[in-house]
Amino acid sequence: MEGIVLEYIEHPKLKDPIFVEGLPGVGSVGKIAIEHLIAELKPRKFAEIYSKYFPPQVMVDQNGRVKMFTNELYFLKRKGKPDIIFLSGDTQAITPDGQYELSEFIVDFVEKLGAKAIYTLGGYNVGKLVEKARVFGAGTSEKLMAEAQKLGVIFKGDEPGGGIAGASGLILAFAERRKIPSLCLLGETSGFFVDPKGAEATLAALVKLIDVDINLKELEERAKQVEKITQRLHEFEDTLGKQAPSKKEDLSYFG
Amino acid sequence: MEGIVLEYIEHPKLKDPIFVEGLPGVGSVGKIAIEHLIAELKPRKFAEIYSKYFPPQVMVDQNGRVKMFTNELYFLKRKGKPDIIFLSGDTQAITPDGQYELSEFIVDFVEKLGAKAIYTLGGYNVGKLVEKARVFGAGTSEKLMAEAQKLGVIFKGDEPGGGIAGASGLILAFAERRKIPSLCLLGETSGFFVDPKGAEATLAALVKLIDVDINLKELEERAKQVEKITQRLHEFEDTLGKQAPSKKEDLSYFG
Amino acid sequence: MEGIVLEYIEHPKLKDPIFVEGLPGVGSVGKIAIEHLIAELKPRKFAEIYSKYFPPQVMVDQNGRVKMFTNELYFLKRKGKPDIIFLSGDTQAITPDGQYELSEFIVDFVEKLGAKAIYTLGGYNVGKLVEKARVFGAGTSEKLMAEAQKLGVIFKGDEPGGGIAGASGLILAFAERRKIPSLCLLGETSGFFVDPKGAEATLAALVKLIDVDINLKELEERAKQVEKITQRLHEFEDTLGKQAPSKKEDLSYFG
Amino acid sequence: MEGIVLEYIEHPKLKDPIFVEGLPGVGSVGKIAIEHLIAELKPRKFAEIYSKYFPPQVMVDQNGRVKMFTNELYFLKRKGKPDIIFLSGDTQAITPDGQYELSEFIVDFVEKLGAKAIYTLGGYNVGKLVEKARVFGAGTSEKLMAEAQKLGVIFKGDEPGGGIAGASGLILAFAERRKIPSLCLLGETSGFFVDPKGAEATLAALVKLIDVDINLKELEERAKQVEKITQRLHEFEDTLGKQAPSKKEDLSYFG
Repeated sequence: MEGIVLEYIEHPKLKDPIFVEGLPGVGSVGKIAIEHLIAELKPRKFAEIYSKYFPPQVMVDQNGRVKMFTNELYFLKRKGKPDIIFLSGDTQAITPDGQYELSEFIVDFVEKLGAKAIYTLGGYNVGKLVEKARVFGAGTSEKLMAEAQKLGVIFKGDEPGGGIAGASGLILAFAERRKIPSLCLLGETSGFFVDPKGAEATLAALVKLIDVDINLKELEERAKQVEKITQRLHEFEDTLGKQAPSKKEDLSYFG
Repeated sequence: MEGIVLEYIEHPKLKDPIFVEGLPGVGSVGKIAIEHLIAELKPRKFAEIYSKYFPPQVMVDQNGRVKMFTNELYFLKRKGKPDIIFLSGDTQAITPDGQYELSEFIVDFVEKLGAKAIYTLGGYNVGKLVEKARVFGAGTSEKLMAEAQKLGVIFKGDEPGGGIAGASGLILAFAERRKIPSLCLLGETSGFFVDPKGAEATLAALVKLIDVDINLKELEERAKQVEKITQRLHEFEDTLGKQAPSKKEDLSYFG
Repeated sequence: MEGIVLEYIEHPKLKDPIFVEGLPGVGSVGKIAIEHLIAELKPRKFAEIYSKYFPPQVMVDQNGRVKMFTNELYFLKRKGKPDIIFLSGDTQAITPDGQYELSEFIVDFVEKLGAKAIYTLGGYNVGKLVEKARVFGAGTSEKLMAEAQKLGVIFKGDEPGGGIAGASGLILAFAERRKIPSLCLLGETSGFFVDPKGAEATLAALVKLIDVDINLKELEERAKQVEKITQRLHEFEDTLGKQAPSKKEDLSYFG
Repeated sequence: MEGIVLEYIEHPKLKDPIFVEGLPGVGSVGKIAIEHLIAELKPRKFAEIYSKYFPPQVMVDQNGRVKMFTNELYFLKRKGKPDIIFLSGDTQAITPDGQYELSEFIVDFVEKLGAKAIYTLGGYNVGKLVEKARVFGAGTSEKLMAEAQKLGVIFKGDEPGGGIAGASGLILAFAERRKIPSLCLLGETSGFFVDPKGAEATLAALVKLIDVDINLKELEERAKQVEKITQRLHEFEDTLGKQAPSKKEDLSYFG
C-alpha cells in the first residue's frame, strides 16, 4: 500500500485558504481546540487520510461500528474573508519517518489547495498544574508572529523549551520550505491530563488571528464532556495497553 | 524481496465466497477457532503467504523439517450456499506498518476472489478467569451486526474496550474501504493462557452466521490436544526467548 | 542506497557447488566453524556484501585501518567433487525485515551460481556448560537429513526447541522455496561464551557431508586463539555498548 | 518524500576539495571542532540537507523562529591550496539504516564535487575525566594515517575500542568503497559532558593536516560560550525528554 492514502469526499474550490491543524498530542490541547472549532463553525468534511504510519488497530464506537484511525480534512467557505481548511484526527504517525512523511504530505496537499497561511495547535507541557494557561508561539513568518505577539502570545527561545515534537513542529518546517507563512500556538498544560484550559487560551488567540467568531464559553461545558470521552479513551488505552504495551508511549510522544 | 509473497497451489473458482480469518492473537482464540473449523470442514489449501513482516526465524517440526512462518488460505466449495475462504497461519506481522500492509493485501486478495462478506475471529482479554465465555462483536455492516446480535453477540462501545488491535481489526477497516460487509467476533478469554472456551463460544455464533455444520463438542477434546501443542509452543517460545528476547512481546501484541 | 550491495572481486565458474553458511550467532558456533574451514581449505574470496541492515558502525583493526561490516563469499574448486561456496561475515542483519532480505538475497545469489545443496551452521543454546557437544539438525531434504542422521546428528522436534532464529533458519526456508536441498547443523553450546566445542562437533559432521579433509585437532589450538580474539571482541562490544547500548542485544539475537 | 533532501543555496566550483565532517556525537567533540573551524575560517554555506531519518521535531530559536533539523554544507576557496568542504549539523540519522543512507549520500555528494580526501571528527569516550586529551585515529589511507601519526595521533586497534559508531565511521567505509583517502580523528573525552578539550586536541592535529591557520586559543573562550549553549541544549533535551523519552538515547548513540 501507499504509505499515506487520501480519499476525497468532495473537491472544494477554495479562495486563498488558511490551514489550521490540531492533532492529538501533549495534554490533547491541539485536538480539543480543533474539535471545538469544528463543533462551532461546522465546516464540511471533504477528505480522509489513513496511513500505515498510524497505530495498527481500529477503534469501535458505542454501537460496535469499527472505525479506522484517520485524519480528516474540513473546509469552511467564508464571504469577504479567506476560506479555512481544518485538519483533525485520531492520531499522529507513530514512527519518526512516518512523522516526516505525513507532515510533508499535509503541507504539499494544502499548498495545492492554495493555502496562504498555516496555523498548528499543540500543548506545552509545564509539568505542574496551571492556574491561567499562557500561550507560547513559534513560527516561520515575522508577520504572523508579530500579530500573535500583540495578542499576548509569548515568543522566547527557552520556552517552548527550544523544540516542538511531532506534526505541529514538522508542518511548520515544511511550510517554510514551501514558503507558506506559518505559526504554531502551544497552550500551557500540566500534561497530567487532557486540559481544556490550554485549548481555551490557544483558541482565544487563534480566533482573532483567523478572524472567526465562536462561543468560547461553551468550551468549558464541552471540556466537561471531553473529560468523559477522555475517561473512556483512557480505559480504551488501558485495554490496548494489555494487548500492545508500546502503544501508550507512542501516544505520549507528540508535542 | 516483495514485502509479502503469495504462492498459489491451485486457482479455485469460487462462487460469492465468504472469507473467515483466524490468526494467532489474544488467548489464541482466533487461531483455535479457525484450526477447528479447518479440521472439521476439511477445506483445501490453495495458497500460502510469507512476508518479511513475519518473525525472522523458522519453525522445526517433530521430524526436524524446517517450516517457514506462513499464513495459509483454504477454500470450501458448497452446494446452494456461498463458498468459504479460510485464512489461518503461524503469526501476524510483527511491525505496525507490516500489520497495515498484510491486512490490506489480504482484503485486496479476497476482494479479487469475489468475497461478499468477511468475518474475523479474535480474543477479548478480560484479565480474569472466565466461567462462561461471552462473545463481543464489532463490524462495518448493520446487516451482519444485526444477525450476530440475534445470536447473543454483544455490541457495545466500551467492550471490546473501544478498540481491536492487529489483523482482526485492520481487515475490517480495509473491508469497509472496499465496501465488503464485515464482522469481527471476539471470544472472551482470561488472556492467561490459550483458551478453548473463548474459541468455542465464538464458533457457536460463527457456524450459524456462515451456515456450516460442525461438531463443537469435539472442540473440548481438541482443546486438550491444543493445550499440549501449546505447552510445546511455549517451551519453543522460551527457547526463542533466550535467542530473541523481543519475540514474546511481539506475539502478545495482537488482538 | 540499495538495501544490500554485492561487490565482485572475481567471477568464478563453479561446477554444481555446495553452499556452506556460517555467520555470528549463538555461541559464535557457526562463525568459528566457518573460520576454521576457511583457514584449513583456503578457498578464494570472490565477493563481499554490505548492507544498510548491518550495524551502523565500522570496525578498526590493529593498525587503525577501518573495516566496514561485511559478509564475504569464498569458493573452492575441487576435482571430481562438487565445488564449494562459503559465506562468512562480521554480522547478521539487525532488523527482522533485514534478516528476510539478506537470507533471500543469499539464496538467490547461490542459486544463480548453480548451488545444488545448502548447509547452514549455528549454535544451539542449552544454557548450561556442555561436556561433549551434541549436534542437532533440521532440514528441507529427506536425503540430506538421512545422511546427517547416520553421522549422529539428532533430529527431533523439541530440540532445537522447535525453531531456528536468524540466517541459519531463513536461508533454509528460502532454499526450500527455490527447491534446493538444505540442511542446518546446530552445535550444542552453553551460550555463556564463544564455544569451540560446538563448532568442533558441527564440523566433525559437516566434513563428512561435504567430503572435505581438514585437521580438526588444530581447531582446539585455534579455539584458544579465537578465545583471545573474542576477548578483544568483547572489549570492543563493551566500548560499543557505551556508545550504542542496543548493539549487544542485537548480536545475541541470532540462532 | 525522498529519504534525504539536499537543497542548494549556490553551486560552487571547487578545486580538488578536502571534505571535513563534524556532527553531534560522543562528547560533542566533532560538532564543537567543526563549529570552531567554521567560526574561524568563515566558509560559505552552499547547501542544506534534511531527512526523514532525523528526529521528528523542530528546534525554536531565541526569537521563536522554527528551525528544521538539518545538516549544512560549507565551502572555502583557497589560493594555492585545495579548497575545503565542511559538513556541520544539528543531528545524525536516528535509525541504523538511516545512518547508512546518509553516510553514503554524503560521500556520493562530495565525490561528485571532486573530493580528494575526507576527514571525519568525533569523540572517543574514555568514561573518566581527561586531563590532557589524546587523539586517536583510524583511516583507509596509509598516507593520511602516516601524516597524522607524525602529529601524535595514536593508531592502535584496541583504541578506539575497535570500532567507530555513526557517521564518522560509516563515511570512512563508503569513502574506501569510492577510493577516496580518508581519516577519522577522535578526541579523547570523559563523555560526561560536552568537552572542548577533546575538540581542541583534535583541531590541533587537523589544522596541520588540512593546512589552515586558526586561533585555537580562542577555542577555550568559545568553549565557555558553548558550555552555556549546551546548558540550554540540555534543558531543551530535558523538555524533549518529557515529550519524546527515546530522544536522549538516540543522541547518545553516535561515535
